[in-house]
Amino acid sequence: MANFEKFVYRFGKFSTDGNREMKHLLGGKGANLAEMSTIGIPVPPGFTISTEACKKTIDNRMEWPENLIDQVREGVKHIETEMGLKLGNEEDPLLISVRSGAAVSMPGMMDTILNLGINDEVVEAIIRKTGNERFAYDSYRRFIDMFGDVVMGVTHDHFEEAIEKLKKEVGVKEDLELTASHLRELTDRYKAIYRKITGHMFPDDPMEQLRFAINAVFNSWNSARAIKYRQISNIHGLIGTAVNVQAMVFGNMGEKSGTGVCFTRNPATGESKLYGEFLLNAQGEDVVAGIRTPNPIAELEERNPEIYKELVSYTGSLESHYKNMQDIEFTIQDGNLFILQTRNGKRTGAAAVKIAVDLVEEKILSKDEAIRDLVDPEHIEQLLHPQFKDGEQAENTILGSGLPASPGAAVGKVVFDSKKAEEAGKDNEPVILVRIETSPEDVGGMSSAEGILTSRGGMTSHAAVVARGWGKPCVAGCSDIVINYKTRSFTNGEVTVKEGDWISLNGNTGKVILGKKELSKPEFSEEYQTFMDWVTDIELMKVRTNAETPEDAQVARSYGAKGIGLARTEHMFFKPGRVNFMRKMIIAESKEERVAALSNLLPFQKQDFAEIFEAMEGLPVTIRLLDPPLHEFLPQEKEEIGKVAGELGVTPDKLLQKVNQLKEFNPMLGHRGCRLGITYPEITEMQTRAIIEAAIELVEQGKEVFPEIMIPLVGSVEEFVNQREVVDRVAQEILADAGVELDYKVGTMIEIPRAAILADQIAEKADFFSFGTNDLTQLTYGFSRDDAAKFLPDYIERGILKQDPFQVLDEEGVGQFVQAGTRLGRMVNSTLKVGICGEHGGDPSSVHFAYNTGLDYVSCSPFRVPVAHLASAQAVLRKNKEEDENSDKPMPTVRA
Amino acid sequence: MANFEKFVYRFGKFSTDGNREMKHLLGGKGANLAEMSTIGIPVPPGFTISTEACKKTIDNRMEWPENLIDQVREGVKHIETEMGLKLGNEEDPLLISVRSGAAVSMPGMMDTILNLGINDEVVEAIIRKTGNERFAYDSYRRFIDMFGDVVMGVTHDHFEEAIEKLKKEVGVKEDLELTASHLRELTDRYKAIYRKITGHMFPDDPMEQLRFAINAVFNSWNSARAIKYRQISNIHGLIGTAVNVQAMVFGNMGEKSGTGVCFTRNPATGESKLYGEFLLNAQGEDVVAGIRTPNPIAELEERNPEIYKELVSYTGSLESHYKNMQDIEFTIQDGNLFILQTRNGKRTGAAAVKIAVDLVEEKILSKDEAIRDLVDPEHIEQLLHPQFKDGEQAENTILGSGLPASPGAAVGKVVFDSKKAEEAGKDNEPVILVRIETSPEDVGGMSSAEGILTSRGGMTSHAAVVARGWGKPCVAGCSDIVINYKTRSFTNGEVTVKEGDWISLNGNTGKVILGKKELSKPEFSEEYQTFMDWVTDIELMKVRTNAETPEDAQVARSYGAKGIGLARTEHMFFKPGRVNFMRKMIIAESKEERVAALSNLLPFQKQDFAEIFEAMEGLPVTIRLLDPPLHEFLPQEKEEIGKVAGELGVTPDKLLQKVNQLKEFNPMLGHRGCRLGITYPEITEMQTRAIIEAAIELVEQGKEVFPEIMIPLVGSVEEFVNQREVVDRVAQEILADAGVELDYKVGTMIEIPRAAILADQIAEKADFFSFGTNDLTQLTYGFSRDDAAKFLPDYIERGILKQDPFQVLDEEGVGQFVQAGTRLGRMVNSTLKVGICGEHGGDPSSVHFAYNTGLDYVSCSPFRVPVAHLASAQAVLRKNKEEDENSDKPMPTVRA
Repeated sequence: MANFEKFVYRFGKFSTDGNREMKHLLGGKGANLAEMSTIGIPVPPGFTISTEACKKTIDNRMEWPENLIDQVREGVKHIETEMGLKLGNEEDPLLISVRSGAAVSMPGMMDTILNLGINDEVVEAIIRKTGNERFAYDSYRRFIDMFGDVVMGVTHDHFEEAIEKLKKEVGVKEDLELTASHLRELTDRYKAIYRKITGHMFPDDPMEQLRFAINAVFNSWNSARAIKYRQISNIHGLIGTAVNVQAMVFGNMGEKSGTGVCFTRNPATGESKLYGEFLLNAQGEDVVAGIRTPNPIAELEERNPEIYKELVSYTGSLESHYKNMQDIEFTIQDGNLFILQTRNGKRTGAAAVKIAVDLVEEKILSKDEAIRDLVDPEHIEQLLHPQFKDGEQAENTILGSGLPASPGAAVGKVVFDSKKAEEAGKDNEPVILVRIETSPEDVGGMSSAEGILTSRGGMTSHAAVVARGWGKPCVAGCSDIVINYKTRSFTNGEVTVKEGDWISLNGNTGKVILGKKELSKPEFSEEYQTFMDWVTDIELMKVRTNAETPEDAQVARSYGAKGIGLARTEHMFFKPGRVNFMRKMIIAESKEERVAALSNLLPFQKQDFAEIFEAMEGLPVTIRLLDPPLHEFLPQEKEEIGKVAGELGVTPDKLLQKVNQLKEFNPMLGHRGCRLGITYPEITEMQTRAIIEAAIELVEQGKEVFPEIMIPLVGSVEEFVNQREVVDRVAQEILADAGVELDYKVGTMIEIPRAAILADQIAEKADFFSFGTNDLTQLTYGFSRDDAAKFLPDYIERGILKQDPFQVLDEEGVGQFVQAGTRLGRMVNSTLKVGICGEHGGDPSSVHFAYNTGLDYVSCSPFRVPVAHLASAQAVLRKNKEEDENSDKPMPTVRA
Repeated sequence: MANFEKFVYRFGKFSTDGNREMKHLLGGKGANLAEMSTIGIPVPPGFTISTEACKKTIDNRMEWPENLIDQVREGVKHIETEMGLKLGNEEDPLLISVRSGAAVSMPGMMDTILNLGINDEVVEAIIRKTGNERFAYDSYRRFIDMFGDVVMGVTHDHFEEAIEKLKKEVGVKEDLELTASHLRELTDRYKAIYRKITGHMFPDDPMEQLRFAINAVFNSWNSARAIKYRQISNIHGLIGTAVNVQAMVFGNMGEKSGTGVCFTRNPATGESKLYGEFLLNAQGEDVVAGIRTPNPIAELEERNPEIYKELVSYTGSLESHYKNMQDIEFTIQDGNLFILQTRNGKRTGAAAVKIAVDLVEEKILSKDEAIRDLVDPEHIEQLLHPQFKDGEQAENTILGSGLPASPGAAVGKVVFDSKKAEEAGKDNEPVILVRIETSPEDVGGMSSAEGILTSRGGMTSHAAVVARGWGKPCVAGCSDIVINYKTRSFTNGEVTVKEGDWISLNGNTGKVILGKKELSKPEFSEEYQTFMDWVTDIELMKVRTNAETPEDAQVARSYGAKGIGLARTEHMFFKPGRVNFMRKMIIAESKEERVAALSNLLPFQKQDFAEIFEAMEGLPVTIRLLDPPLHEFLPQEKEEIGKVAGELGVTPDKLLQKVNQLKEFNPMLGHRGCRLGITYPEITEMQTRAIIEAAIELVEQGKEVFPEIMIPLVGSVEEFVNQREVVDRVAQEILADAGVELDYKVGTMIEIPRAAILADQIAEKADFFSFGTNDLTQLTYGFSRDDAAKFLPDYIERGILKQDPFQVLDEEGVGQFVQAGTRLGRMVNSTLKVGICGEHGGDPSSVHFAYNTGLDYVSCSPFRVPVAHLASAQAVLRKNKEEDENSDKPMPTVRA
């Protein structure tokens, strides 16, 4: 044999030829099986036929290379030896599986064939060994189905038809109701179908079965779908697929057999103890079908201490080897333990953090690896909000399902208006504010409520954005319920909920539950603190926060925010005692009247800014000048107009006239942003004065303050220059009068496509850019985020969009504008600070994009700061890893 | 003198040294004066000091090069000889002017100095010669002012202060009321000011005055403003400025003197006959001041036949030389005719076309030159619409002024609703439809009306767009008037106009006039036909039309349209008998109901398309699938909802619910365009069926038809692919059934920024692109065209925008998307057809941009087709000319 090329690589307890470096030759699956064998894991033994063999066979018109058949026979012998069984043997028959496996996994290749080796004699042997005739014939008929479909092109529907026909004949509905003799009959019918369509008898000889199966794998390498997939995915440099042939093992061979699944650690708490369940004398299917109830894994220690000990040792090796908590499937066949599968286990946020920290302390992995691979940003998100103590249970009455608009769980009595919510808030009564949709007038009530439920609006509706900003649970756009403000109730058609009834919201799943569920408060474990300390130790892109109150600013700072990236000044105007001055400004008929009204707002704004500066002392604070269209500050309903008119001392008609005058067809594209400041420079003047005077106050107290004044909705350099002149003029004047030096910056939000592509012009005049990716997404797509709920779900369902672009930055489209804006801006202004604010600042994949684009910071709501921190650290570590890997992995090339 | 460099170049009747090739040395003005002299035009004699002299003087710290002073003296002598006068002479004094003049004209250089040569003695001689003491002192004091300001830096305001003071003292308000002796006094005061500030006496010696003035010109070459201007404009390669010294001539030297202006042809009609007016014994200022009424030029022939003959001969030469109708200023001084200025004359559209054709026939210029330089696209526009016979007159009562939204004039009785307009239309009664704003429901009435007046909305409001499409006069957004539908009247606060009263609209100026003005119908002269034939003979970018009726298609075709670039199918749904099927489709609760309603629309759509295809036989027809949001088809007002509900057989509540459900915050960014077709593929199916079946009908009649199906509002290739699959599936099916072959195309409108930057992906799947620059402009700027009227006028006034980007394509911003989309699209699909539709398709400068970007066609409303044709031809010819010129003009380089 020395003269022949080696095509077959064994794996198993005693003989293993490959290892994990041989992916190119053995495929991913084959290399991994070899690797596990090498470190002593008892996988069912088998062998891998190399990709070289595949290539040579295809090149040689499907004639196998010389000696391959002999090597395959040797491989089978190897399995037989390890298992103590023989292929086709009528006493102790060996069954095997055949699977494809290239170096890169791809669809369109051959599926698995299980139970290869059965024939009419072997099936009897299985019955004898298992005492389970039904199982034996079920295995047999499944094998014929798979073999026929995959190897001979007798498509699965032929067999499906036969089983349906039989079920009708015998009068049963479910496959499970078929008896052993039914299945024996079915096996015969399957063979008849096979014969009718292929013109051949179903092959009896296991070696012939195997040869056919191997050829089917070789052929599938050049199936139309596989070729297409390689083209589309730009996969080059692969020569063919490997073929994995492996022993089948059975857990239903008596009381010394069994099957089970386990996690190496507790997936709910992270506790370092084996966690799982098992069944003796059973196959995995029995567990799935719910026929028998499995036992906790701990009992295995009592029932079979040796096997248990062995299992613990293997699971420990696997965890160390894969450097992660493992989710493992195992089967015991006649006292022999086999590991069938291992993969990284799913876990809760608390468990993820604990496991990560424990594994580092156990020296199984490094801190960098723990941060990069062991904890998802979503895990951190979970930890920051209350959750249902017992999760969602089958017995819960689900009233409806909406969008999981802001995470965490909340419980409270239903109220339908903001005023009631505020009153309840004063009495410390927990309430859920239920509205068709919310508007800026509702913020008082939203702030008092435990959670918010709306029946209309998307992930970026007003309710959703505000709730996320405050870390308050919110279910938005729950179209299952109909709200009736008049009767003060809502209904899902079956249950009607009245004001005062208790409901529970799950902001992580979007579920609305009747009644008062128990909550668990977020707790920050010691491990959490340790983990986040490691995260923030990494040299990373800065994370700022979007906040407009000193409270939010403090929360964010406690979470590690490095400044404020977006303070929306308009939110400040809605507070009681202020909004009427704003309204007076709006209905003013002359500049003088406007200036007078604004001067009443000045002390409030100044006070706000002073408090925020104080909370963020020593860190930059970006303040956006007034952005929304003015009509948002006016009442819209008749009754309210009458009331407000009285307060303002004008006739309702006059106010109504103004309301109508300010109506816009498309307010998002209307008179807002810097367009307001250009028409009414006195607004910009007042806001600049408030910012600079507040800053001076702090400077005079010896505090460091770094205001960054942001001009919104700029589409041309002319707009920016116009507003910057106003800002600089007012600021210089005040600073000169006060004799104070202040390092303030003036920049703009890049949220208009035109600004992004002409960013070089703007950057010549600006100190910083902040990408307002919400509006930029709206304009890039031409999607109104308030209206897109009408078609976005449809788009995602049909695969037209992969995800909601308002949640995950559209890198291909919107991302081009972020990249172009950054590149053009830095080209002419090398000191330009560039960041991202808006919803995407807290989305992990968007944070990665921001890092790869080279931004200086991302800014997100306070409760997402730790999430963004982790995402940011992971972006750094993954890029490092990628660079390491690319330096020593020349092929195959797969385009991301 | 042979050893000295030549610095001074004379021009005049007898001796001229330069010519027009010597711009670099003599500056533009100097070269032109030399040129005119060369061809025998009697410009006032003078000389030009070269740019070399300027450079040497500056390089030599303001010391003149050797011999320059002698050459200047020679130059003065030359003027004296030609004029028969002498500088500083107390009998026959010569006055001269001094002007700067570089090769490229630039601001910041020295202004003109007139009347140089006056002093206390000379002023007396002028009085003697003119008999006009007031004139003499007025000239003197003006000279001191200019000289002081320009040469010595005694700024103009010093002199202005003095004149104001004097007027107060003598109790007059206007300068004209000052008498001769007042001006004599003022002259003295000016000299005192000069002396006080400069510390010197005002120079008496004319040669000294001249030397100072020349140095002032030299110095101004390096003034801060001039240097800045050259930097900004990127002007390089110039060595200095030339100085032009020229005789002053006076028309007030008695009855053998005079002054006048004339056009070489009639600027109103184009008739080839001198047209103008003159005054004997007068200066130009006298005409401007309105002191005397001038005489028609024809009378000059009687009063002075010789001078008249001479004038006719010169004007002929000038016209031939400049290859254009000239607007000429002349002065007769003591029987000698001087041409002071000549420039291309302004003219009406009719005149422009006639002159162009006549000049070609007179062999003065080529057809290409006539097309390129002699007729503006606006001239053609004028010819296509009715106009007021007598224009706007002082005695007209102007009711208000709005935007000139659609050109032409209209006269009719006021009606306030669409129904009344339609009724009047049936009775052939001319009406003007007056609405606050129009909506698609008004199109019936708009079509019947002579013209449309709205009090709200911009240049691209519904009223404006529809009116322009139909070539119907429209004044939009006339905020001077308040409309009251209840009282059926409108008022401007002074005049109230009731329904039935006559008004007249001027769509060219935006004026609304009380009463019934007389109109002149557009007439297409023989010259127009000739000219447009020449235009369409040029190999040019194709011009298509935006049309959705066979009538419009025919009009456009008669104007030379090469197909339809945009047929908006939704306009077809508004016709009576159709809209209720559309509404049934909208309120349908199942796909089946929708399909049923659509099937009722199918025959109408098919009929429409068949008629359009017929009208455009042999030419491509681009049909856009349904675009607007569905709520546009539903009634919005309570009363109407009740009525329509009855017609549809549903309860008003149900209809109201649907209306509310379809309401959108930002409909422009909402559920419209291909988003509709994706949610309701049955709409796309029905429209495709109508298109293909109509096409088959024509093909079976042996006619050629080229349908191009356009999918609107595509933002991603996935959207396009989704809709193209529906179109192709339906089309292939119908064609296969009919056994007909049809060359149909499927493409998309590029109107979403994302589509433009990902155009390569889309072009792989599309046959054509049409840039929808209206929506693209809205999204690129984030401007709603329906709301932008709130700030756009302000923006233009403040110079933040140079023009309304909805009228003139924003080349810098939106243009980048057009260029990128075209480049990316052609990169992957070399046969991709690319055009532009939307408002910009008819705007001349945008047509130029389209040509330079390499588009295949522009598409515009039928009445703009000839305008776009001319613009397109001009784009070709100008580019050719530019290329010719660039090949032989190495310097100076001026960046466009």
